[in-house]
Amino acid sequence: MKVGLIGFGRTGKAVASTIIQNKEFTLEWVLRRKTVLENRSLPEFFGFDDENEKGRIYSTEHITPDELFDMHPVDFVIDFSSTLGIYTYGQEAAERQIKIISAISHYKKEDIHYLKELSKRTAVFWSPNITLGVNYLLLASKSLKKIAPFVDIEVVEEHFKQKEGVSGTAVKIAEALDVKASKISSIRAGGIVGKHEIIFGFPFQTVRLTHESISREAFGTGVLFAAHNLIDKKKGYYNYEDILTPYFNNSKN
Amino acid sequence: MKVGLIGFGRTGKAVASTIIQNKEFTLEWVLRRKTVLENRSLPEFFGFDDENEKGRIYSTEHITPDELFDMHPVDFVIDFSSTLGIYTYGQEAAERQIKIISAISHYKKEDIHYLKELSKRTAVFWSPNITLGVNYLLLASKSLKKIAPFVDIEVVEEHFKQKEGVSGTAVKIAEALDVKASKISSIRAGGIVGKHEIIFGFPFQTVRLTHESISREAFGTGVLFAAHNLIDKKKGYYNYEDILTPYFNNSKN
Amino acid sequence: MKVGLIGFGRTGKAVASTIIQNKEFTLEWVLRRKTVLENRSLPEFFGFDDENEKGRIYSTEHITPDELFDMHPVDFVIDFSSTLGIYTYGQEAAERQIKIISAISHYKKEDIHYLKELSKRTAVFWSPNITLGVNYLLLASKSLKKIAPFVDIEVVEEHFKQKEGVSGTAVKIAEALDVKASKISSIRAGGIVGKHEIIFGFPFQTVRLTHESISREAFGTGVLFAAHNLIDKKKGYYNYEDILTPYFNNSKN
Amino acid sequence: MKVGLIGFGRTGKAVASTIIQNKEFTLEWVLRRKTVLENRSLPEFFGFDDENEKGRIYSTEHITPDELFDMHPVDFVIDFSSTLGIYTYGQEAAERQIKIISAISHYKKEDIHYLKELSKRTAVFWSPNITLGVNYLLLASKSLKKIAPFVDIEVVEEHFKQKEGVSGTAVKIAEALDVKASKISSIRAGGIVGKHEIIFGFPFQTVRLTHESISREAFGTGVLFAAHNLIDKKKGYYNYEDILTPYFNNSKN
Repeated sequence: MKVGLIGFGRTGKAVASTIIQNKEFTLEWVLRRKTVLENRSLPEFFGFDDENEKGRIYSTEHITPDELFDMHPVDFVIDFSSTLGIYTYGQEAAERQIKIISAISHYKKEDIHYLKELSKRTAVFWSPNITLGVNYLLLASKSLKKIAPFVDIEVVEEHFKQKEGVSGTAVKIAEALDVKASKISSIRAGGIVGKHEIIFGFPFQTVRLTHESISREAFGTGVLFAAHNLIDKKKGYYNYEDILTPYFNNSKN
Repeated sequence: MKVGLIGFGRTGKAVASTIIQNKEFTLEWVLRRKTVLENRSLPEFFGFDDENEKGRIYSTEHITPDELFDMHPVDFVIDFSSTLGIYTYGQEAAERQIKIISAISHYKKEDIHYLKELSKRTAVFWSPNITLGVNYLLLASKSLKKIAPFVDIEVVEEHFKQKEGVSGTAVKIAEALDVKASKISSIRAGGIVGKHEIIFGFPFQTVRLTHESISREAFGTGVLFAAHNLIDKKKGYYNYEDILTPYFNNSKN
Repeated sequence: MKVGLIGFGRTGKAVASTIIQNKEFTLEWVLRRKTVLENRSLPEFFGFDDENEKGRIYSTEHITPDELFDMHPVDFVIDFSSTLGIYTYGQEAAERQIKIISAISHYKKEDIHYLKELSKRTAVFWSPNITLGVNYLLLASKSLKKIAPFVDIEVVEEHFKQKEGVSGTAVKIAEALDVKASKISSIRAGGIVGKHEIIFGFPFQTVRLTHESISREAFGTGVLFAAHNLIDKKKGYYNYEDILTPYFNNSKN
Repeated sequence: MKVGLIGFGRTGKAVASTIIQNKEFTLEWVLRRKTVLENRSLPEFFGFDDENEKGRIYSTEHITPDELFDMHPVDFVIDFSSTLGIYTYGQEAAERQIKIISAISHYKKEDIHYLKELSKRTAVFWSPNITLGVNYLLLASKSLKKIAPFVDIEVVEEHFKQKEGVSGTAVKIAEALDVKASKISSIRAGGIVGKHEIIFGFPFQTVRLTHESISREAFGTGVLFAAHNLIDKKKGYYNYEDILTPYFNNSKN
């Protein structure tokens, strides 16, 4: 399976490094706005030596997604650019039935509308937090809430000191569980990378679901899991819940 | 829904106290081997005042399950006695279509065979660890293992100093996840009531599922959950996985 | 060493049960306001059989502390009654050089003044939270704050759902570490007995000091530790920091 | 205060990056065996711009420690090289009263003997694990063991899957607390950077001291703390316990 990546910021780089070390997918190219690193070989950039991997870094200054799709055909395009990225390649990808995986966090309503339009012609997957662990936590928590609707739920998130505001993931967890924002506790201390804990308080027992981030490469794991589960999809609009649910209900073994 | 309880040791008492405080079920009677506390009123014994609750404690010295079923009909019989208990009431309960919930830990193969025979005529539920939280953990863990088959799994269990051997629950978790026994770490320190943690180590993130016991009343919560989910079952043989799975696959909301 | 206990509420009972099982101290009597359980044997009440233990329960309805001190002399009086208790026995205890250990949480300024007056004639120890573990945490945390004055500190406390307000212990921890009240997160869920965690966030590492309560008997452990460390004190006013500090600076081995 | 660093492997680099960002110390030079990066400017290498920092990277291929001490005098030499390093600069450093901080893990007896010889002429500090947090844990744990000699102690250490054997730090903790090796549980899962937890089990309460590593820069924090506490020392042999103890016994505020 061939993959192209749009966006090469800190997270984009971590995702590229994960894809390049994976056996199921090859990273054909990276397309970014800046010209820094243009034409660099990806395996060389990451110090990873595998004859099957030979992608390069391109800049939108000198090539369009359309041209790149022609020169270096891919099965998936992964988007870690910005909310605007989708408009530069969406149409062209859909025409070629290239599947789209977008990890952009802050799409507006019209952007999502556009994604859904594209999904009539190809498979489109969107997740604002594409980490496998966090999405698992979300689904496992929702199950527990259904099992025990009256359990007390609290969310604790810990991050490095400079992080401002409540973590978006914690807010999403609280919303999914229909828990008030006041039930989120935010710890800000030193260099904590990122931890989310959902506490389910029963009268005589406590259940805790915890996710700890080690590094940004976790986004890559999430992308690869999504891609793997989209291989057999022709078109349609998917999110993480759609691809994880089958694993919970025994239809996948 | 009317409930009778067989067995009144430390756990039986904790379970009785939980049932008696529940609105959906009333505790009609307790049947035990010993004559201690015979004829005592259950609401009075637990210092719980509710005019709907008026059960008493009986001893097998002076009454048989059969006679009790006639005098004080019930919908469920809950078994916290011993592996032998089922043979004193099973037949009679099945005949009357009284549903059976057994929490006996160490049934032998022939006992389970007997349970299955009974399940042809009434609903029979058996769980060797009837805690809701632990059973939830088991199922949620199995889902995560299916999602990420190559994740590293470790189980840590903590209990009070005197507890001998590896916790049976930890062993069951390891078996369910196909994890080697060497991957269970047992902590024995002071008066820790009971904690089980399943650690899922991904390269760039860690997921932890943790269950902490506060008191034995947690078994009562588990019994009530099982009973609630058996109300609409006529006959058949059930375990915790059977009644929890629907909550994971969106068929229950 | 002989001990008398004033106050026999839920915590008083737990403390009595701990003292009665200890080899270094014997519980000579309990004095309480109510006449319930009056004259009951303490070993019998707790189902504890030891020929050295033969204390009884007395009520202030029928005997004064003064009379009790004469009939059943003690080396220590332990106070788990109320802020008023000290005025009923303080003078008489000080005269007899009976050491006083008070665990009353909410003394007013004038009560503490009175304790200090008494401490001119006997050893007086007061701790509003007499748990050994929490007091250790306080001292260990203060050391770490001195070592790393600029570390980020957060306090997380977890308790059962019904507990109102921020835990007094968490407030005391925050004050001792000069940490703003806004840095305390309070989790209220189910039946959690009590947990306090102090998080020290460094840029490249995190240190956590955690105390989990299992049951009220922990107060008994704290009382016994205080008593043990007061044995060689003739008079003076002591708190937990006074008796713990020597263990931190190597003067005790 | 001027600092020179010997050794520039992965940990040496992390330490250099921490020193260079600190206001109290300036990094005058790095000396390494390899010629890779020779003559590179340190501020430039770390992308850190501060006119007070202007150190460079040197190689032992082209310069000796002795020459470097003359050209670029320092107050401290920090050793992250190998057990052999000390023999290349120890004599020369001691003569000039340059204080020595060594973080070499596996010195043999004769190496330590040599360090002690040098300490007759200058201040010599050695710590096989120079992390501030782990050393704090060691000392805080020893205090708690003295306070409660009969408490149950267990050590749990978690690391990435590939790490072989029991963590050296866990072994050191167990030795310091006189706890059997069988009381260490080793978890190996995914990419866990490093976590050490010391569990103190009391009958009615549990205390946990936990250290979590985020990145190797933590070694730099430890070096800077050691250096800060050696500024006023003329000569003598020191370890982490020596410099931490005063913070525990109130002589430092």
